[in-house]
Amino acid sequence: MQEGFDPIARMALQLAKLPGIGQKSAQRLAYHIAAMPQEAVKELAAALWQGRKALRFCDRCGNYAQDALCPICQEEKRQNGQICVVRDARDVAAMERMRDFKGLYHVLGGTLSPMHGIGPEDIRIQELMARLSTEPVDEIILATNPDIEGEATAAYIARLIKPMGIRVTRIAHGVPVGSDLEYTDEVTLAKAMEGRREL
Amino acid sequence: MQEGFDPIARMALQLAKLPGIGQKSAQRLAYHIAAMPQEAVKELAAALWQGRKALRFCDRCGNYAQDALCPICQEEKRQNGQICVVRDARDVAAMERMRDFKGLYHVLGGTLSPMHGIGPEDIRIQELMARLSTEPVDEIILATNPDIEGEATAAYIARLIKPMGIRVTRIAHGVPVGSDLEYTDEVTLAKAMEGRREL
Repeated sequence: MQEGFDPIARMALQLAKLPGIGQKSAQRLAYHIAAMPQEAVKELAAALWQGRKALRFCDRCGNYAQDALCPICQEEKRQNGQICVVRDARDVAAMERMRDFKGLYHVLGGTLSPMHGIGPEDIRIQELMARLSTEPVDEIILATNPDIEGEATAAYIARLIKPMGIRVTRIAHGVPVGSDLEYTDEVTLAKAMEGRREL
Repeated sequence: MQEGFDPIARMALQLAKLPGIGQKSAQRLAYHIAAMPQEAVKELAAALWQGRKALRFCDRCGNYAQDALCPICQEEKRQNGQICVVRDARDVAAMERMRDFKGLYHVLGGTLSPMHGIGPEDIRIQELMARLSTEPVDEIILATNPDIEGEATAAYIARLIKPMGIRVTRIAHGVPVGSDLEYTDEVTLAKAMEGRREL
């Protein structure tokens, strides 16, 4: 980074820490921001910092929230007995873009991965089990990613819950195996929901 | 953008305004930032906002500066009689990465473009002329981009300055015609400086 241009170098350094932004793009962005009106930069910085500060996790489902409950858990009519289990909050966003699912979510915050030392106690499985005794649940829809870890996590949760007499389903493999739920289009996601099968 | 997730939607909205960041990347970045430690987001936001606030233009050359003069103009030893004229501040950064040029800069803040109604009075040509009478100048190196507007601007400035008996040179067309100075590698830029010719 060029000596002396500290504010721009500092911007670029921070921007380059974001995923998908390399050194060159970071510097280009920094110069762009340097040339933006002060007010616009203020809005950008405020959106990031105040936004981050405002975020917490939903006490019930683990999704991002501003209050104790996330906006989805706050909606009475979404208590329809279905809980869709996903890996993380961005998967909730992906499911919501489909606009088809009317139930609640449960965000695991990860998937089982013996390779990385992530066991059942490291993700929010216990919290899911607790919900089964306090909420009226008819169906658990397992919507973890269709990769090895996602499948293993789904199988693990199914083994825990099926003996309790609750319906456990897995979204169909309409989504290409090995891909990421977050990047799946709405139509494919809807098909995957439709074709979900009993585990 | 998903209803209810206001802080994340607000982040994504602001990020999508940056060049080269589409809706999808903006949302991905927003989720990444939501999951970053608060301290890290604070650093990012502070780098952008405080950085932008700290920036002004150098009174002499028009480059970005934190004080009245930019770090380059503040260095006594760079007063070597050479002034390299570039379109904008990021071109100064590109030239500096080469580490070969030991003189001063003059940032025009644009190039002549009759098509876009940008005439000599809209870019910092008058300020350049003023420098010629207050600074000891032996050579003006015209390093505007090798495109139509950059060439026209170089030719215009050459016509103004040559009658004053000051050496006026143009960086060589080592850089591919039609490309952007900012993306030229250091070696090509060095060759272009070497092969500069009298106008």
